[in-house]
Amino acid sequence: MIDLRSDTVTKPTQAMRDAGYHAEVGDDVYVEDPTVNMLEKKAAEILGKEDALFVTSGVQGNQIAVLTHCDKGNEIILEEDSHVFYYEGAAISAFAGVQPRTIRGEHGAMDPTEVEAAIRPEDVHLPETGMICVENTHNRSGGAVVPLETMKQTYEVAKKHGIPLHLDGARLFNAVAATGISAKEYAAQTDTVQICLSKGLGAPVGSIIAGTVSFIQQARKWRKRLGGGLRQVGVIAAPAYIALSEMTERLNEDHANAKLLAKGIQEAGFKVANPVDTNIILMDIEDENVDAVGMIERLESFEIKAVAFGPNLIRFVTHYDVSTNDIEKTIMVLKEIKTMI
Amino acid sequence: MIDLRSDTVTKPTQAMRDAGYHAEVGDDVYVEDPTVNMLEKKAAEILGKEDALFVTSGVQGNQIAVLTHCDKGNEIILEEDSHVFYYEGAAISAFAGVQPRTIRGEHGAMDPTEVEAAIRPEDVHLPETGMICVENTHNRSGGAVVPLETMKQTYEVAKKHGIPLHLDGARLFNAVAATGISAKEYAAQTDTVQICLSKGLGAPVGSIIAGTVSFIQQARKWRKRLGGGLRQVGVIAAPAYIALSEMTERLNEDHANAKLLAKGIQEAGFKVANPVDTNIILMDIEDENVDAVGMIERLESFEIKAVAFGPNLIRFVTHYDVSTNDIEKTIMVLKEIKTMI
Amino acid sequence: MIDLRSDTVTKPTQAMRDAGYHAEVGDDVYVEDPTVNMLEKKAAEILGKEDALFVTSGVQGNQIAVLTHCDKGNEIILEEDSHVFYYEGAAISAFAGVQPRTIRGEHGAMDPTEVEAAIRPEDVHLPETGMICVENTHNRSGGAVVPLETMKQTYEVAKKHGIPLHLDGARLFNAVAATGISAKEYAAQTDTVQICLSKGLGAPVGSIIAGTVSFIQQARKWRKRLGGGLRQVGVIAAPAYIALSEMTERLNEDHANAKLLAKGIQEAGFKVANPVDTNIILMDIEDENVDAVGMIERLESFEIKAVAFGPNLIRFVTHYDVSTNDIEKTIMVLKEIKTMI
Amino acid sequence: MIDLRSDTVTKPTQAMRDAGYHAEVGDDVYVEDPTVNMLEKKAAEILGKEDALFVTSGVQGNQIAVLTHCDKGNEIILEEDSHVFYYEGAAISAFAGVQPRTIRGEHGAMDPTEVEAAIRPEDVHLPETGMICVENTHNRSGGAVVPLETMKQTYEVAKKHGIPLHLDGARLFNAVAATGISAKEYAAQTDTVQICLSKGLGAPVGSIIAGTVSFIQQARKWRKRLGGGLRQVGVIAAPAYIALSEMTERLNEDHANAKLLAKGIQEAGFKVANPVDTNIILMDIEDENVDAVGMIERLESFEIKAVAFGPNLIRFVTHYDVSTNDIEKTIMVLKEIKTMI
Repeated sequence: MIDLRSDTVTKPTQAMRDAGYHAEVGDDVYVEDPTVNMLEKKAAEILGKEDALFVTSGVQGNQIAVLTHCDKGNEIILEEDSHVFYYEGAAISAFAGVQPRTIRGEHGAMDPTEVEAAIRPEDVHLPETGMICVENTHNRSGGAVVPLETMKQTYEVAKKHGIPLHLDGARLFNAVAATGISAKEYAAQTDTVQICLSKGLGAPVGSIIAGTVSFIQQARKWRKRLGGGLRQVGVIAAPAYIALSEMTERLNEDHANAKLLAKGIQEAGFKVANPVDTNIILMDIEDENVDAVGMIERLESFEIKAVAFGPNLIRFVTHYDVSTNDIEKTIMVLKEIKTMI
Repeated sequence: MIDLRSDTVTKPTQAMRDAGYHAEVGDDVYVEDPTVNMLEKKAAEILGKEDALFVTSGVQGNQIAVLTHCDKGNEIILEEDSHVFYYEGAAISAFAGVQPRTIRGEHGAMDPTEVEAAIRPEDVHLPETGMICVENTHNRSGGAVVPLETMKQTYEVAKKHGIPLHLDGARLFNAVAATGISAKEYAAQTDTVQICLSKGLGAPVGSIIAGTVSFIQQARKWRKRLGGGLRQVGVIAAPAYIALSEMTERLNEDHANAKLLAKGIQEAGFKVANPVDTNIILMDIEDENVDAVGMIERLESFEIKAVAFGPNLIRFVTHYDVSTNDIEKTIMVLKEIKTMI
Repeated sequence: MIDLRSDTVTKPTQAMRDAGYHAEVGDDVYVEDPTVNMLEKKAAEILGKEDALFVTSGVQGNQIAVLTHCDKGNEIILEEDSHVFYYEGAAISAFAGVQPRTIRGEHGAMDPTEVEAAIRPEDVHLPETGMICVENTHNRSGGAVVPLETMKQTYEVAKKHGIPLHLDGARLFNAVAATGISAKEYAAQTDTVQICLSKGLGAPVGSIIAGTVSFIQQARKWRKRLGGGLRQVGVIAAPAYIALSEMTERLNEDHANAKLLAKGIQEAGFKVANPVDTNIILMDIEDENVDAVGMIERLESFEIKAVAFGPNLIRFVTHYDVSTNDIEKTIMVLKEIKTMI
Repeated sequence: MIDLRSDTVTKPTQAMRDAGYHAEVGDDVYVEDPTVNMLEKKAAEILGKEDALFVTSGVQGNQIAVLTHCDKGNEIILEEDSHVFYYEGAAISAFAGVQPRTIRGEHGAMDPTEVEAAIRPEDVHLPETGMICVENTHNRSGGAVVPLETMKQTYEVAKKHGIPLHLDGARLFNAVAATGISAKEYAAQTDTVQICLSKGLGAPVGSIIAGTVSFIQQARKWRKRLGGGLRQVGVIAAPAYIALSEMTERLNEDHANAKLLAKGIQEAGFKVANPVDTNIILMDIEDENVDAVGMIERLESFEIKAVAFGPNLIRFVTHYDVSTNDIEKTIMVLKEIKTMI
């Protein structure tokens, strides 16, 4: 099987297995697990933030940001295809009591002028704008990199209006690899940032949320309420530490594979719907005699997995467990399928 | 003063004053106020629903619909400029824990195909779609009438997917007056409907929410939680009864005045941004040397009141307390202002 | 019918009818109704608070206090039989996301030492204590007056820990009438206070919530979300003004009638379960051959109404629409019933 | 250091380390991790439920139960010192919008008659009772075992009224070890049950929630919203599997150590406040010249850790990483401290 559904399917490396096995552990609810403490310190340094907190998923990190930054009855501004709005089960409304105000972005990037226009003035009819959320890279736009300049302008808007800005950086290191701009530079344009260690970086479990000391203190309590207060968390923090320290450099391999696949898709006669900035390719089959469900089935019959992204769109994601050879095989299969439909 | 800010500013008529004065009353928490019981029965008949409930405002009626139809963590589909999303302080998220999924409509009308596409499939990442909400007439689109045919198609979609459809009919009787289609015909394309008695119909206070007996039973409990369980409510239900039974016919006078004002605005050299289906006129001053705040001030200096609808848009609303004479005076003032800017 | 179910059943007086009829009105969402503005000013003065807000019910006033004082995930300390906990449909949890921490009081009064012990220390497992709520007089304890000294000590505790204290004073004026201590003196031992104008004071509809200017500003927005933003509210604010200015003195008549009824109940051979400080009598029929439902039915057959307060307890409430003659008739009926069971 | 603060501090055993190292893994959001699937199947069998779900903590399992069983505005009945009420940061109110109705139990066991009396009848003022929650063993009562007979009677009440019953069985296997009654027999008196694998059973991370197939399906979605949808979860599910299959038998060693410590505490001249059914000892120092904070400090100076449970109560918990020798040393230290205060 060549599994191109998501970079979340990556299996832990041997180094991660070893690290987990030997991890020094303690009870993290008492803040006594040395391995997670080390990971949080390292993450804070890399992101240039005062403090950081290990959480079990990107969803948990994002929800904690919303719960900590916002009061019930607030509105948050975010892109209309962003993960926090689209894929988190309406949890921002269910748990934090917060209403999303969505803006259509271009390649995942909201226009800072539109963001500013969406901020609510004081009026008895209107919610207060409690947070602005940026996603970089932007998943549903096909792993698009939001330009640093856009983030800077958005953060200017946020600061001008005294509104916290949170970055959903589940795939921030893909942006880093693609642009050469450091995670710290991106994070400098935010108040808080969430990064996933379990996607392209390959950790079995875990994300980080980073911000000020005071933010993290409150975040710790919301994490407990969400059931994210774990015990001997070192057994998963150790592989996550490897992910953060050793796996960020190699993401360019995934990006090269993605570009190779995109080229192959076009050679096979299909359309690529996104610029392929990083490790995600969206294949548009609107003009083909098969819909997304049918295409997924055909790919599966050749032992290739992908996911539908709407009725006529297929998402492929390259990652650590997919080789250039796998990509070449995938391209051949796509050429074969093209002849069949 | 000519007050064109909103039809909510209408003062109770003499008949309403009299009705309130003589109203037979009782404790409505015990469902013993004969006047409100009569009003609710009348409203249910007019709307063709099994039962109806008096509430203190359109906001309260809409929130009760969301609270009753939806579970926490649901998503509701509604127009991106709709009152429930735009002007209710994010209460749907704060109270019901529900996430809005907004669709850009045309003249306030969402395309039923887009509504269907926005319904979420079953997936662990996604919220369940818990309600579809239509607003007719649509305030921020300038009192636009949503066509009955669009409502029919939207309700077909809703029924096909087993999703309740709620109509925010705060100004439903303006649609009725403009089209000649009865309130019952509109309401037949919904599961529940809210109508305001305090806007064009002139009641001092009150709205109605209507639906099945079982819906109203639950609605009654949510109304109590919201603090809408009142006592000798007959004193306001009596004028509201007059509004519902005697004031719907006269809305066409407001519509005629609105058309007159729209024509005058254009004659004065300003632009009208909406088709003026009913009693709302949006004047677009983007090309003028004055912004909305400045224009409001100039109008006030001539004893005319209106509201800003964004930085370059002015909303005028005609109503019972504005005469054709007032409109003519307003047009003269606008012509005067045009020469000054 | 002699209706002793609740003082909420009182019908508006002629003076109230007149006041409503002649009330000068405006749109209160624009804060332009002169009658409600006058009422709010008067209420603030009487309660010695900076500002006040008209709301449609005691539930709405209490919920606004919780919504404004507390963050989601807070805990509030209140008496285990208090109205906010017992009779408001869990709205504090549903809307404000707040957990009640209940304390068993004596005659409705919580021991200030127990209140202090219930305040949560800072710990990752624990909610923050966000509010303390006192109810005076205390409904389910039979209209018991909470002593001013207890309120003072409780407020000391609250201030020491920086926690806001809210008074549910739905029947505060009954405490005032019974003790001669002014409403201002009671309210001085609180941050915010809610009073009902529609119970013993006889207004058809309405309550007041009072506090600082900044509190009321936020309260206004929560009132809007709850659907309590009304339009020409003067029609009900005017009778409410009469209730507040002319009806507080007469509550001692209700208290005298209550004492008379309590004496009669005992003469009839039944037990009175509460000290009858004000206008509520709890008749304990645990030792009788009839339960509460049966007793209510027997009373109804004699055209007397009361309510069950648990399986063996009957609540009678005296009020403006019950005369001493009615009480004497009730006593005779009770004596008659006693011979029958 | 002898760490008697909690059984949560246990470090993973060598067998757990090995299992984690070799665990076969997959992406559990796609339900493709074979190790967690095996664990869930095993747990469902042991508990006699249709299905089970791995969650990251007892808090998460309990919160999922409340979120899945209850609607916003419901009330749940639970013991006034229960973990769900006392130690979960008011999350039931913050997230599920549910109000706790607390009952004072005896040794952690609520009287089923009181539970039934606390169920709310249908009335517009009252919340609906949405869940009954039992905790067995009961932490704050000192690890007290709730008798099976009490659970049976409580479940009868629940079924009679159609209300789901959830068991917080964070330490259910301590009850099993103490009584010889199987987990399945206890779980048969519930609709859903949560068990922790990271306390006495020694797993580094993880709990299980079990119930019907349909319940678990909904629970999976709430877990995702809480951020508990993990990826290659096998690395922690494998040690958790060892905990569940190999560690339940040995809990009696902890219980024997607890009884030994209780005896020693009394020999040292201190009071034991609980019957010591399982692995928790509450030492009452109300009559001593030292408060809980001071006692904790003295113990720490002898390299013994415990926690304060209120101002005059110390909790000791025995577990896998505490030997009989450690207990004997602790007793000697307590005797030493007794001579010093």
